[in-house]
Amino acid sequence: MKFRRSGRLVDMTNYFLSHPHKQIPLTFFSEAYKSAKSSISEDIAIIKEVFEEKRIGTIGTTAGATGGVTFVPTVGRSKTEELIDQLCEELEDSERLLPGGYLYMMDVIGDPLLTLELGRVFASAFRKANVDAVMTMATKGIPLAYAVAGHLNVPVSIVRHEHRITEGSIVSINYVSGSQKRIQTMSLARRSLKPNSNVLIIDDFMKAGGTIRGMMDLVTEFQSTIAGIGVLTEAVHSEEKLVDKYVSLTKLTEVDIKTKKIKVERGNLFDIPFSYEDIK
Amino acid sequence: MKFRRSGRLVDMTNYFLSHPHKQIPLTFFSEAYKSAKSSISEDIAIIKEVFEEKRIGTIGTTAGATGGVTFVPTVGRSKTEELIDQLCEELEDSERLLPGGYLYMMDVIGDPLLTLELGRVFASAFRKANVDAVMTMATKGIPLAYAVAGHLNVPVSIVRHEHRITEGSIVSINYVSGSQKRIQTMSLARRSLKPNSNVLIIDDFMKAGGTIRGMMDLVTEFQSTIAGIGVLTEAVHSEEKLVDKYVSLTKLTEVDIKTKKIKVERGNLFDIPFSYEDIK
Repeated sequence: MKFRRSGRLVDMTNYFLSHPHKQIPLTFFSEAYKSAKSSISEDIAIIKEVFEEKRIGTIGTTAGATGGVTFVPTVGRSKTEELIDQLCEELEDSERLLPGGYLYMMDVIGDPLLTLELGRVFASAFRKANVDAVMTMATKGIPLAYAVAGHLNVPVSIVRHEHRITEGSIVSINYVSGSQKRIQTMSLARRSLKPNSNVLIIDDFMKAGGTIRGMMDLVTEFQSTIAGIGVLTEAVHSEEKLVDKYVSLTKLTEVDIKTKKIKVERGNLFDIPFSYEDIK
Repeated sequence: MKFRRSGRLVDMTNYFLSHPHKQIPLTFFSEAYKSAKSSISEDIAIIKEVFEEKRIGTIGTTAGATGGVTFVPTVGRSKTEELIDQLCEELEDSERLLPGGYLYMMDVIGDPLLTLELGRVFASAFRKANVDAVMTMATKGIPLAYAVAGHLNVPVSIVRHEHRITEGSIVSINYVSGSQKRIQTMSLARRSLKPNSNVLIIDDFMKAGGTIRGMMDLVTEFQSTIAGIGVLTEAVHSEEKLVDKYVSLTKLTEVDIKTKKIKVERGNLFDIPFSYEDIK
């Protein structure tokens, strides 16, 4: 299909956005548009400039015969601060308070475009972690996990509490839920995670970290490694957390059931130097 | 921020793609880029042409003071046929066969970018159904439901088998699972679906349709209406289905456990005239 530059810019922008973290040879575009490689290179330079200016992401170039260009979604620091501060404010709404000191968060998790934005923040933070797969716990971690995995272009493994017949052979482990000190079981289908994967664990909520600790053990059962851990909200917890290194977007620092006061602050994401070092 | 046309095209393409089904006034763009409305109109004409040529979607215009432009994601018929035929072929792999005649499908459901594509097919088919919310059943319907909802720019309501304390007051109903004739319970948080919503039900698998029938009853409990029903795979079922009108992407027509033969065909999507009538 023959396009002029303006048409190519629109179509290539769509292609990059829907194929993150995928190396694309220049010949792919030059053949698709029947254009010279030099023209394609100029197109890409324009797209790269806008993507960096508007903090959509970066486009990296690998030289050589097997080389090409790769779109990596990123979110700049000020955009992230704005997004997280707005989320904190929304989460502080006293109407969210549920019996037991839990917070109602399904409106946040239930918003697909907000979830995609939050997923992009994690994908940006872990863009150099060589993630092969994202792991999460059913049910409420799933939307965020898919958003992160989509931006990193890797598959998702869904861990579950129950055993399901419809997934074939499964690997189960017992773990101690950190806050309630109860022994529970979590399972993952044998086929749903390749051995030797580098796994990014994503969950919606972390208190003591027992569930995440369990997922870390499960990763080991699959002869795999931990690329990182990301949680949407961490809660203050009187005892020591069972997980050392993790990235949180928000921190629930205070829940007063009597006065219905909730305090939510920025998570530790902003304290981690690797997240923003080279995002222009 | 001042951009030349080429820069505007890249940035506006990104904006449209990340804000589907949202009416955007022209002044939004002309103010953002400090450009004349006439230039913006020309930009949009270029984007619209490429979006329609490459079957990315359409850009509709509403005139008047409250008017603006709206990006609606669509998938053309030939692209859909290609996607579904490839999926059918993958699903026919005899390695998928699990005890009980179930199929292992987590690799399909676990692929975020494939799921986004499949979700776009449903969003395209139901683009004129005035969908206010997408409803699905945990766990395996969630990824597809989010993909559909993201392209329609509406929230997701997740129905669950168990009761969860962390969601406040819930509405539960009993339903009879169609194939096993067992009475089961499904629940939805009171807050997670607004009354008077027009609800699109999305699920990964339908046999007799008992679960979907249950979700339809649940929609009624929320004083809401059914915008449509979409399933990734429907299975042939000897008895009458409990659901009349639904859209399926694939149809599991034969499962022979002894010979390990699986037959998967195109679903009924292609028989439904409304899906493609006016996609250019």
